[in-house]
Amino acid sequence: MAEKVDLIAKCIRTFPDFPTKGIPFKDICPILKDPKALAAVTDLFEEHVRRTYPQVDLIVGLDARGFLFGPLLAQRLGVGFAPIRKKGKLPGPTLSVAYSLEYAKAEAEMQEDAVSAGQKVLIIDDLLATGGTLYAACELIKQQKAEVLGCLVVVELKYLSGSEKLQSTPVFSLIQY
Amino acid sequence: MAEKVDLIAKCIRTFPDFPTKGIPFKDICPILKDPKALAAVTDLFEEHVRRTYPQVDLIVGLDARGFLFGPLLAQRLGVGFAPIRKKGKLPGPTLSVAYSLEYAKAEAEMQEDAVSAGQKVLIIDDLLATGGTLYAACELIKQQKAEVLGCLVVVELKYLSGSEKLQSTPVFSLIQY
Repeated sequence: MAEKVDLIAKCIRTFPDFPTKGIPFKDICPILKDPKALAAVTDLFEEHVRRTYPQVDLIVGLDARGFLFGPLLAQRLGVGFAPIRKKGKLPGPTLSVAYSLEYAKAEAEMQEDAVSAGQKVLIIDDLLATGGTLYAACELIKQQKAEVLGCLVVVELKYLSGSEKLQSTPVFSLIQY
Repeated sequence: MAEKVDLIAKCIRTFPDFPTKGIPFKDICPILKDPKALAAVTDLFEEHVRRTYPQVDLIVGLDARGFLFGPLLAQRLGVGFAPIRKKGKLPGPTLSVAYSLEYAKAEAEMQEDAVSAGQKVLIIDDLLATGGTLYAACELIKQQKAEVLGCLVVVELKYLSGSEKLQSTPVFSLIQY
Protein backbone atom coordinates (compact mmCIF):
# COMPACT_ATOMS: atom_id res chain seq x y z
CA MET A 1 0.00 0.00 0.00
CA ALA A 2 2.78 2.49 0.95
CA GLU A 3 4.48 1.82 -2.38
CA LYS A 4 1.29 2.62 -4.29
CA VAL A 5 0.71 5.80 -2.27
CA ASP A 6 4.28 6.90 -3.02
CA LEU A 7 3.82 6.26 -6.73
CA ILE A 8 0.64 8.38 -6.74
CA ALA A 9 2.16 11.15 -4.59
CA LYS A 10 5.08 11.49 -7.01
CA CYS A 11 2.60 12.16 -9.83
CA ILE A 12 0.88 15.12 -8.14
CA ARG A 13 2.36 18.54 -8.90
CA THR A 14 1.49 21.98 -7.58
CA PHE A 15 0.92 25.06 -9.75
CA PRO A 16 0.84 28.27 -7.67
CA ASP A 17 -1.85 30.92 -8.30
CA PHE A 18 -4.15 28.74 -10.41
CA PRO A 19 -6.93 29.35 -11.31
CA THR A 20 -6.67 32.55 -9.23
CA LYS A 21 -3.99 34.22 -7.12
CA GLY A 22 -3.27 32.48 -3.82
CA ILE A 23 -4.57 29.04 -4.87
CA PRO A 24 -1.85 26.34 -5.01
CA PHE A 25 -3.48 24.04 -7.59
CA LYS A 26 -2.85 20.31 -7.22
CA ASP A 27 -2.62 18.81 -10.71
CA ILE A 28 -3.51 15.13 -10.94
CA CYS A 29 -2.95 14.84 -14.73
CA PRO A 30 0.39 12.99 -14.39
CA ILE A 31 -1.47 10.18 -12.57
CA LEU A 32 -3.59 9.66 -15.67
CA LYS A 33 -0.55 9.64 -17.92
CA ASP A 34 1.08 6.80 -15.95
CA PRO A 35 -1.02 3.63 -16.26
CA LYS A 36 0.62 2.12 -13.13
CA ALA A 37 -0.25 5.19 -11.04
CA LEU A 38 -3.86 5.23 -12.25
CA ALA A 39 -4.15 1.50 -11.51
CA ALA A 40 -2.74 2.18 -8.02
CA VAL A 41 -5.45 4.78 -7.37
CA THR A 42 -8.15 2.32 -8.36
CA ASP A 43 -6.51 -0.50 -6.35
CA LEU A 44 -6.40 1.58 -3.16
CA PHE A 45 -9.98 2.82 -3.55
CA GLU A 46 -11.18 -0.72 -4.29
CA GLU A 47 -9.38 -2.21 -1.24
CA HIS A 48 -10.83 0.48 1.03
CA VAL A 49 -14.37 0.05 -0.29
CA ARG A 50 -14.34 -3.77 -0.13
CA ARG A 51 -13.11 -3.59 3.47
CA THR A 52 -15.25 -0.69 4.69
CA TYR A 53 -18.32 -0.46 2.46
CA PRO A 54 -19.03 -3.93 0.99
CA GLN A 55 -22.71 -2.94 0.84
CA VAL A 56 -22.16 -0.10 -1.70
CA ASP A 57 -24.73 0.04 -4.55
CA LEU A 58 -23.56 3.02 -6.59
CA ILE A 59 -20.55 5.25 -7.20
CA VAL A 60 -21.42 8.91 -7.82
CA GLY A 61 -18.72 11.08 -9.43
CA LEU A 62 -18.37 14.84 -9.65
CA ASP A 63 -17.97 16.81 -12.89
CA ALA A 64 -15.36 16.71 -14.35
CA ARG A 65 -12.35 15.15 -12.60
CA GLY A 66 -14.46 12.73 -10.57
CA PHE A 67 -15.40 11.23 -13.94
CA LEU A 68 -11.77 10.22 -14.44
CA PHE A 69 -11.70 7.93 -11.38
CA GLY A 70 -15.33 6.97 -10.68
CA PRO A 71 -16.15 4.64 -13.58
CA LEU A 72 -12.85 2.75 -13.01
CA LEU A 73 -13.82 2.08 -9.39
CA ALA A 74 -17.45 1.26 -10.21
CA GLN A 75 -16.34 -1.32 -12.80
CA ARG A 76 -13.93 -2.95 -10.34
CA LEU A 77 -16.75 -3.24 -7.81
CA GLY A 78 -19.36 -4.33 -10.36
CA VAL A 79 -21.73 -1.49 -9.48
CA GLY A 80 -23.19 1.41 -11.44
CA PHE A 81 -21.90 4.96 -11.79
CA ALA A 82 -23.89 8.21 -11.84
CA PRO A 83 -22.62 11.73 -12.62
CA ILE A 84 -23.28 14.94 -10.72
CA ARG A 85 -22.78 17.82 -13.12
CA LYS A 86 -22.65 21.58 -13.22
CA LYS A 87 -26.15 22.99 -13.79
CA GLY A 88 -27.58 22.77 -17.32
CA LYS A 89 -25.57 19.78 -18.53
CA LEU A 90 -27.95 16.91 -17.75
CA PRO A 91 -31.17 16.32 -19.72
CA GLY A 92 -34.51 15.24 -18.27
CA PRO A 93 -35.90 15.76 -14.76
CA THR A 94 -33.12 16.83 -12.39
CA LEU A 95 -32.52 17.97 -8.82
CA SER A 96 -30.01 20.71 -8.02
CA VAL A 97 -28.21 22.24 -5.03
CA ALA A 98 -26.30 25.57 -5.00
CA TYR A 99 -22.90 25.74 -3.30
CA SER A 100 -19.74 27.84 -2.91
CA LEU A 101 -16.41 26.60 -4.25
CA GLU A 102 -12.92 27.45 -3.04
CA TYR A 103 -12.81 30.10 -5.78
CA ALA A 104 -16.30 30.38 -7.35
CA LYS A 105 -20.03 29.72 -6.96
CA ALA A 106 -21.87 26.95 -8.74
CA GLU A 107 -24.86 24.64 -8.77
CA ALA A 108 -24.62 20.83 -8.72
CA GLU A 109 -27.24 18.83 -10.59
CA MET A 110 -28.24 15.19 -10.83
CA GLN A 111 -30.82 13.28 -12.84
CA GLU A 112 -33.80 12.29 -10.71
CA ASP A 113 -33.57 8.66 -11.80
CA ALA A 114 -29.80 8.38 -11.23
CA VAL A 115 -30.19 7.19 -7.64
CA SER A 116 -33.05 5.21 -6.07
CA ALA A 117 -34.39 5.61 -2.52
CA GLY A 118 -32.48 3.39 -0.11
CA GLN A 119 -29.40 2.94 -2.30
CA LYS A 120 -26.04 3.05 -0.56
CA VAL A 121 -23.79 5.54 -2.32
CA LEU A 122 -20.12 6.51 -2.32
CA ILE A 123 -19.18 9.89 -3.80
CA ILE A 124 -15.86 10.26 -5.61
CA ASP A 125 -13.85 13.30 -6.71
CA ASP A 126 -10.21 14.07 -7.40
CA LEU A 127 -9.74 16.54 -4.54
CA LEU A 128 -11.27 17.73 -1.27
CA ALA A 129 -10.64 21.43 -0.66
CA THR A 130 -13.25 23.38 1.36
CA GLY A 131 -15.79 20.60 0.82
CA GLY A 132 -18.44 22.76 -0.85
CA THR A 133 -18.90 20.54 -3.89
CA LEU A 134 -18.91 17.28 -1.94
CA TYR A 135 -21.34 18.75 0.60
CA ALA A 136 -23.72 19.71 -2.24
CA ALA A 137 -23.33 16.21 -3.68
CA CYS A 138 -24.25 14.65 -0.32
CA GLU A 139 -27.34 16.88 -0.17
CA LEU A 140 -28.41 15.77 -3.66
CA ILE A 141 -28.12 12.09 -2.71
CA LYS A 142 -30.07 12.64 0.52
CA GLN A 143 -32.81 14.52 -1.39
CA GLN A 144 -33.34 11.30 -3.31
CA LYS A 145 -33.68 9.40 0.01
CA ALA A 146 -30.52 7.43 -0.66
CA GLU A 147 -27.72 6.95 1.86
CA VAL A 148 -24.24 8.48 1.55
CA LEU A 149 -21.78 5.97 2.99
CA GLY A 150 -18.78 8.25 2.48
CA CYS A 151 -16.63 10.28 0.14
CA LEU A 152 -13.47 9.16 -1.68
CA VAL A 153 -10.85 11.59 -2.98
CA VAL A 154 -7.35 11.21 -4.37
CA VAL A 155 -6.08 14.39 -2.67
CA GLU A 156 -7.23 16.05 0.55
CA LEU A 157 -6.13 19.59 1.43
CA LYS A 158 -6.30 19.07 5.21
CA TYR A 159 -5.49 22.73 5.93
CA LEU A 160 -8.84 23.76 4.38
CA SER A 161 -10.79 21.52 6.81
CA GLY A 162 -13.19 20.26 4.15
CA SER A 163 -13.94 17.10 6.12
CA GLU A 164 -15.42 19.26 8.92
CA LYS A 165 -17.88 20.76 6.47
CA LEU A 166 -18.93 17.23 5.52
CA GLN A 167 -19.77 16.61 9.21
CA SER A 168 -20.69 12.99 9.84
CA THR A 169 -19.86 11.79 6.32
CA PRO A 170 -16.49 9.99 6.42
CA VAL A 171 -13.84 11.01 3.89
CA PHE A 172 -11.17 8.61 2.62
CA SER A 173 -8.20 10.24 0.86
CA LEU A 174 -5.08 8.70 -0.67
CA ILE A 175 -2.78 11.74 -0.35
CA GLN A 176 -2.99 14.54 2.23
CA TYR A 177 -1.43 18.02 2.30
CA MET B 1 -20.44 -8.26 -30.47
CA ALA B 2 -24.04 -7.72 -31.70
CA GLU B 3 -25.32 -8.61 -28.24
CA LYS B 4 -23.05 -6.00 -26.62
CA VAL B 5 -24.09 -3.34 -29.14
CA ASP B 6 -27.77 -4.12 -28.42
CA LEU B 7 -27.20 -3.81 -24.68
CA ILE B 8 -25.55 -0.42 -25.15
CA ALA B 9 -28.17 0.82 -27.65
CA LYS B 10 -30.98 0.01 -25.19
CA CYS B 11 -29.28 2.27 -22.63
CA ILE B 12 -29.25 5.38 -24.84
CA ARG B 13 -32.27 7.65 -24.55
CA THR B 14 -33.24 10.79 -26.46
CA PHE B 15 -34.40 14.03 -24.84
CA PRO B 16 -35.89 16.47 -27.40
CA ASP B 17 -34.94 20.17 -27.32
CA PHE B 18 -31.94 19.84 -24.98
CA PRO B 19 -29.91 21.88 -24.29
CA THR B 20 -31.65 24.15 -26.85
CA LYS B 21 -34.74 23.86 -29.08
CA GLY B 22 -34.29 21.52 -32.03
CA ILE B 23 -31.50 19.43 -30.50
CA PRO B 24 -32.46 15.79 -29.83
CA PHE B 25 -30.00 15.06 -26.99
CA LYS B 26 -28.63 11.53 -26.74
CA ASP B 27 -28.23 10.69 -23.05
CA ILE B 28 -25.60 8.07 -22.27
CA CYS B 29 -26.09 8.14 -18.46
CA PRO B 30 -28.01 4.83 -18.34
CA ILE B 31 -24.91 3.10 -19.78
CA LEU B 32 -22.94 4.23 -16.73
CA LYS B 33 -25.66 3.03 -14.37
CA ASP B 34 -25.53 -0.52 -15.79
CA PRO B 35 -22.11 -2.08 -15.08
CA LYS B 36 -22.63 -4.69 -17.85
CA ALA B 37 -23.35 -1.99 -20.44
CA LEU B 38 -20.32 0.07 -19.41
CA ALA B 39 -18.14 -3.05 -19.56
CA ALA B 40 -19.55 -3.75 -23.04
CA VAL B 41 -18.51 -0.26 -24.24
CA THR B 42 -14.97 -0.82 -22.97
CA ASP B 43 -14.86 -4.36 -24.43
CA LEU B 44 -15.87 -3.15 -27.90
CA PHE B 45 -13.44 -0.23 -27.88
CA GLU B 46 -10.65 -2.50 -26.64
CA GLU B 47 -11.31 -5.15 -29.32
CA HIS B 48 -11.32 -2.50 -32.05
CA VAL B 49 -8.13 -0.85 -30.84
CA ARG B 50 -6.21 -4.13 -30.38
CA ARG B 51 -7.21 -5.18 -33.90
CA THR B 52 -6.78 -1.84 -35.67
CA TYR B 53 -4.34 0.27 -33.65
CA PRO B 54 -2.04 -2.06 -31.67
CA GLN B 55 0.62 0.67 -31.84
CA VAL B 56 -1.41 3.19 -29.77
CA ASP B 57 0.59 5.07 -27.09
CA LEU B 58 -2.01 7.33 -25.50
CA ILE B 59 -5.76 7.79 -25.13
CA VAL B 60 -6.90 11.43 -25.13
CA GLY B 61 -10.40 12.14 -23.78
CA LEU B 62 -12.63 15.17 -24.14
CA ASP B 63 -14.10 17.14 -21.22
CA ALA B 64 -16.34 15.97 -19.68
CA ARG B 65 -18.07 12.86 -21.03
CA GLY B 66 -14.94 11.55 -22.74
CA PHE B 67 -13.51 11.30 -19.21
CA LEU B 68 -16.14 8.66 -18.39
CA PHE B 69 -14.91 6.22 -21.05
CA GLY B 70 -11.28 7.14 -21.75
CA PRO B 71 -9.51 6.05 -18.55
CA LEU B 72 -11.35 2.68 -18.66
CA LEU B 73 -10.03 2.03 -22.16
CA ALA B 74 -6.52 3.32 -21.39
CA GLN B 75 -6.27 0.98 -18.39
CA ARG B 76 -7.43 -2.02 -20.44
CA LEU B 77 -4.73 -1.24 -23.01
CA GLY B 78 -2.05 -0.42 -20.43
CA VAL B 79 -1.41 3.04 -21.86
CA GLY B 80 -1.73 6.56 -20.44
CA PHE B 81 -4.65 8.96 -20.62
CA ALA B 82 -4.59 12.72 -21.17
CA PRO B 83 -7.50 15.17 -20.91
CA ILE B 84 -8.49 17.93 -23.32
CA ARG B 85 -10.50 20.48 -21.39
CA LYS B 86 -12.52 23.62 -21.86
CA LYS B 87 -10.26 26.67 -21.68
CA GLY B 88 -9.05 27.77 -18.25
CA LYS B 89 -9.34 24.42 -16.48
CA LEU B 90 -5.78 23.09 -16.91
CA PRO B 91 -2.80 24.53 -15.00
CA GLY B 92 0.68 25.09 -16.40
CA PRO B 93 1.76 25.68 -20.01
CA THR B 94 -1.07 24.80 -22.41
CA LEU B 95 -2.01 24.90 -26.08
CA SER B 96 -5.53 25.82 -27.19
CA VAL B 97 -7.72 25.71 -30.30
CA ALA B 98 -11.05 27.54 -30.78
CA TYR B 99 -14.01 25.70 -32.33
CA SER B 100 -17.77 25.80 -32.91
CA LEU B 101 -20.05 23.25 -31.25
CA GLU B 102 -23.44 21.99 -32.42
CA TYR B 103 -25.00 24.62 -30.15
CA ALA B 104 -22.20 26.88 -28.78
CA LYS B 105 -18.66 28.18 -29.22
CA ALA B 106 -15.73 27.05 -27.11
CA GLU B 107 -11.98 26.63 -26.85
CA ALA B 108 -10.24 23.28 -26.28
CA GLU B 109 -7.06 23.22 -24.24
CA MET B 110 -4.36 20.67 -23.47
CA GLN B 111 -1.25 20.70 -21.30
CA GLU B 112 1.90 21.03 -23.38
CA ASP B 113 3.50 18.02 -21.70
CA ALA B 114 0.43 15.79 -22.06
CA VAL B 115 1.55 14.40 -25.42
CA SER B 116 5.05 13.92 -26.79
CA ALA B 117 6.16 14.38 -30.41
CA GLY B 118 5.77 11.15 -32.34
CA GLN B 119 3.25 9.54 -29.98
CA LYS B 120 0.36 7.67 -31.56
CA VAL B 121 -2.91 8.90 -30.13
CA LEU B 122 -6.56 7.85 -30.12
CA ILE B 123 -9.14 10.47 -29.16
CA ILE B 124 -12.28 9.38 -27.29
CA ASP B 125 -15.59 11.09 -26.61
CA ASP B 126 -19.14 10.02 -25.88
CA LEU B 127 -20.67 11.42 -29.07
CA LEU B 128 -19.81 12.67 -32.55
CA ALA B 129 -22.23 15.39 -33.72
CA THR B 130 -20.89 18.03 -36.14
CA GLY B 131 -17.30 17.07 -35.28
CA GLY B 132 -16.20 20.51 -34.09
CA THR B 133 -14.80 19.35 -30.76
CA LEU B 134 -13.05 16.28 -32.15
CA TYR B 135 -11.60 18.36 -35.00
CA ALA B 136 -10.16 20.83 -32.47
CA ALA B 137 -8.79 17.90 -30.46
CA CYS B 138 -7.05 16.52 -33.58
CA GLU B 139 -5.52 19.96 -34.21
CA LEU B 140 -4.20 20.11 -30.64
CA ILE B 141 -2.54 16.69 -30.99
CA LYS B 142 -1.00 17.65 -34.33
CA GLN B 143 0.31 20.93 -32.88
CA GLN B 144 2.33 18.78 -30.49
CA LYS B 145 3.73 16.81 -33.47
CA ALA B 146 1.98 13.65 -32.35
CA GLU B 147 -0.07 11.44 -34.67
CA VAL B 148 -3.85 11.01 -34.43
CA LEU B 149 -4.62 7.39 -35.35
CA GLY B 150 -8.38 7.87 -35.08
CA CYS B 151 -11.37 8.88 -32.99
CA LEU B 152 -13.58 6.60 -30.89
CA VAL B 153 -17.14 7.55 -29.89
CA VAL B 154 -20.01 5.67 -28.30
CA VAL B 155 -22.65 7.44 -30.41
CA GLU B 156 -22.35 8.92 -33.91
CA LEU B 157 -25.08 11.21 -35.29
CA LYS B 158 -24.50 10.25 -38.94
CA TYR B 159 -27.03 12.83 -40.20
CA LEU B 160 -24.73 15.65 -38.99
CA SER B 161 -21.80 14.33 -41.11
CA GLY B 162 -19.22 14.93 -38.39
CA SER B 163 -16.88 12.32 -39.87
CA GLU B 164 -16.61 14.45 -43.05
CA LYS B 165 -15.35 17.36 -40.97
CA LEU B 166 -12.69 15.06 -39.52
CA GLN B 167 -11.50 14.39 -43.10
CA SER B 168 -8.84 11.68 -43.19
CA THR B 169 -9.09 10.81 -39.47
CA PRO B 170 -11.06 7.56 -39.13
CA VAL B 171 -13.97 7.47 -36.69
CA PHE B 172 -15.11 4.29 -34.94
CA SER B 173 -18.55 4.45 -33.33
CA LEU B 174 -20.52 1.80 -31.45
CA ILE B 175 -24.03 3.15 -32.15
CA GLN B 176 -25.17 5.22 -35.15
CA TYR B 177 -28.27 7.36 -35.70
